[in-house]
Amino acid sequence: MAHAFKNCSNLMVTGASRGLGLQIIESLVTGGFSPGKIIATARNPDGAKELQMLAEEHQNIHIIKLDVTCQESIERAASEVEQLVQEEGLNCLINNAGINVVANLETVTADKMLENFHTNSVAPLMITKAMLPLLKRAAAKGTGMGIHRAAVINMTSLLGSVELYWGDRADTFKWYPYRTSKSALNMVTRCLAVDLEADGILCMALHPGWVRTDMGGPEAPLSPEESISCVLSVIGGLTEKDHGSFLHYTGEQLPW
Amino acid sequence: MAHAFKNCSNLMVTGASRGLGLQIIESLVTGGFSPGKIIATARNPDGAKELQMLAEEHQNIHIIKLDVTCQESIERAASEVEQLVQEEGLNCLINNAGINVVANLETVTADKMLENFHTNSVAPLMITKAMLPLLKRAAAKGTGMGIHRAAVINMTSLLGSVELYWGDRADTFKWYPYRTSKSALNMVTRCLAVDLEADGILCMALHPGWVRTDMGGPEAPLSPEESISCVLSVIGGLTEKDHGSFLHYTGEQLPW
Ligand SMILES: NC(=O)c1ccc[n+]([C@@H]2O[C@H](COP(=O)([O-])OP(=O)(O)OC[C@H]3O[C@@H](n4cnc5c(N)ncnc54)[C@H](OP(=O)(O)O)[C@@H]3O)[C@@H](O)[C@H]2O)c1
Ligand SMILES: NC(=O)c1ccc[n+]([C@@H]2O[C@H](COP(=O)([O-])OP(=O)(O)OC[C@H]3O[C@@H](n4cnc5c(N)ncnc54)[C@H](OP(=O)(O)O)[C@@H]3O)[C@@H](O)[C@H]2O)c1
Repeated sequence: MAHAFKNCSNLMVTGASRGLGLQIIESLVTGGFSPGKIIATARNPDGAKELQMLAEEHQNIHIIKLDVTCQESIERAASEVEQLVQEEGLNCLINNAGINVVANLETVTADKMLENFHTNSVAPLMITKAMLPLLKRAAAKGTGMGIHRAAVINMTSLLGSVELYWGDRADTFKWYPYRTSKSALNMVTRCLAVDLEADGILCMALHPGWVRTDMGGPEAPLSPEESISCVLSVIGGLTEKDHGSFLHYTGEQLPW
Repeated sequence: MAHAFKNCSNLMVTGASRGLGLQIIESLVTGGFSPGKIIATARNPDGAKELQMLAEEHQNIHIIKLDVTCQESIERAASEVEQLVQEEGLNCLINNAGINVVANLETVTADKMLENFHTNSVAPLMITKAMLPLLKRAAAKGTGMGIHRAAVINMTSLLGSVELYWGDRADTFKWYPYRTSKSALNMVTRCLAVDLEADGILCMALHPGWVRTDMGGPEAPLSPEESISCVLSVIGGLTEKDHGSFLHYTGEQLPW
């Protein structure tokens, strides 16, 4: 699986302190990802002990502080990433950081909606904007589309599919802020895909499956290893035909 | 067209100071809508001269102050609406107020995204929540689904369709805040449809066409009269099969 990443030099992941973000870093290094730089970002690197340990063992992991909802933090991170990747640029940006501000119709408030939207939908856009010069730099060196050139992967959710939230599937997870934020992220992804196509930067939205992380909870059917093994194989295999798409971790296309 | 409204007693429209909201009020009264109450809301009623004039001519128009982004204002309006409709309840809520915070990839900021999302996606949800007791009161008196019973209509846009924003359609209107807010509104609509089905409250999202209002601009192909004539005929004809749907002003179904 990490084999599929052999043509990707430099990769960046947000929310790498725990859960799926941390697993991406771990699976890449244990899978023998090389030779590029793995940029693991976290809003509180000092508290991210497992990530710190991984970085001590693997020289190609670089930890950078990034609170995805803070524009200053985004800009500071962008210039640190530039120092790291320099002329090579950034081949793959995985916007993974996310929150679930749980609220149903009874408990939802405007603030809860805005908070979830900021982290899950706006932050990936603002981070992509800030990394754009570095993504373009990498894209300028390649042809075709994929992580050998430059790609933006937004971690979305099946729960953001408006089409699928109906009938049998409408019994559970009545989460207004989360569902809405992921539908919004899907549109952000599509807008980016339209705008970045001319630069050869692939943009897509990926559902990682229901996974046993702090967010997914203990009842989820997939382990982080299982999910990320599939996720990395989908990302590694992305080509032109996947530009602007919404994919399941199994590689199947999902309806908006 | 207003004929289709003969079974709807009490109706409420947000953003009735100008554009499509004002046209809805005008078309209803000139089309002979009766016998119910038409509740026209505006954030600044004193500045809404045309609406004031209409209300002087037509006794069944009731103007209520409502800034859709202010929770206090929403709650105050809800209790004023309750005073008006009393035991009859509210048969039709049209969440029409909206803004277009124009920004492309270069000019978009987190604040612009949040502002558009608040007005276009969060406000319809918070207003629907506040009016729920009145919608339920009306729904309790009827059977089937439609405006003879209770319905929530969210004015969305074709530009909120993720599916349609591709290929030939991707050349213009690269508006991140607006498109994202309308995709989010579509998910809000779907969530409401799932939750309010058991109460018999129909919820759907409606695209009014591209219309010559302040928002639509002078180049739009439709006049407000033309758009609203179709919009009211679609709303008047809604039944169970339209619950949870995304419809074009011509009545056709649109993809999410
Ligand atoms: N788990 C699932 O079943 C599932 C299903 C579908 C989609 N997803 C999506 O997959 C992504 C990862 O989910 P997960 O299960 O790994 O969640 P998680 O276990 O709750 O971890 C969330 C990660 O996001 C980070 N984060 C949150 N807000 C942040 C901010 N403002 N700045 C920087 N980092 C921030 C957290 O950092 P801290 O440690 O500092 O809090 C943490 O690293 C999310 O986008 C989620 O919506 C998950
Ligand atoms: N025109 C089109 O081509 C088109 C196409 C697709 C969808 N739509 C949708 O149709 C709806 C109406 O559009 P329009 O063309 O009539 O727009 P418009 O001419 O710009 O009028 C917008 C209306 O919304 C009100 N509004 C905005 N923010 C408000 C707030 N915070 N509180 C209360 N009222 C507020 C405005 O009130 P003030 O007068 O106080 O500003 C005004 O009455 C919108 O949701 C729009 O997105 C329009």
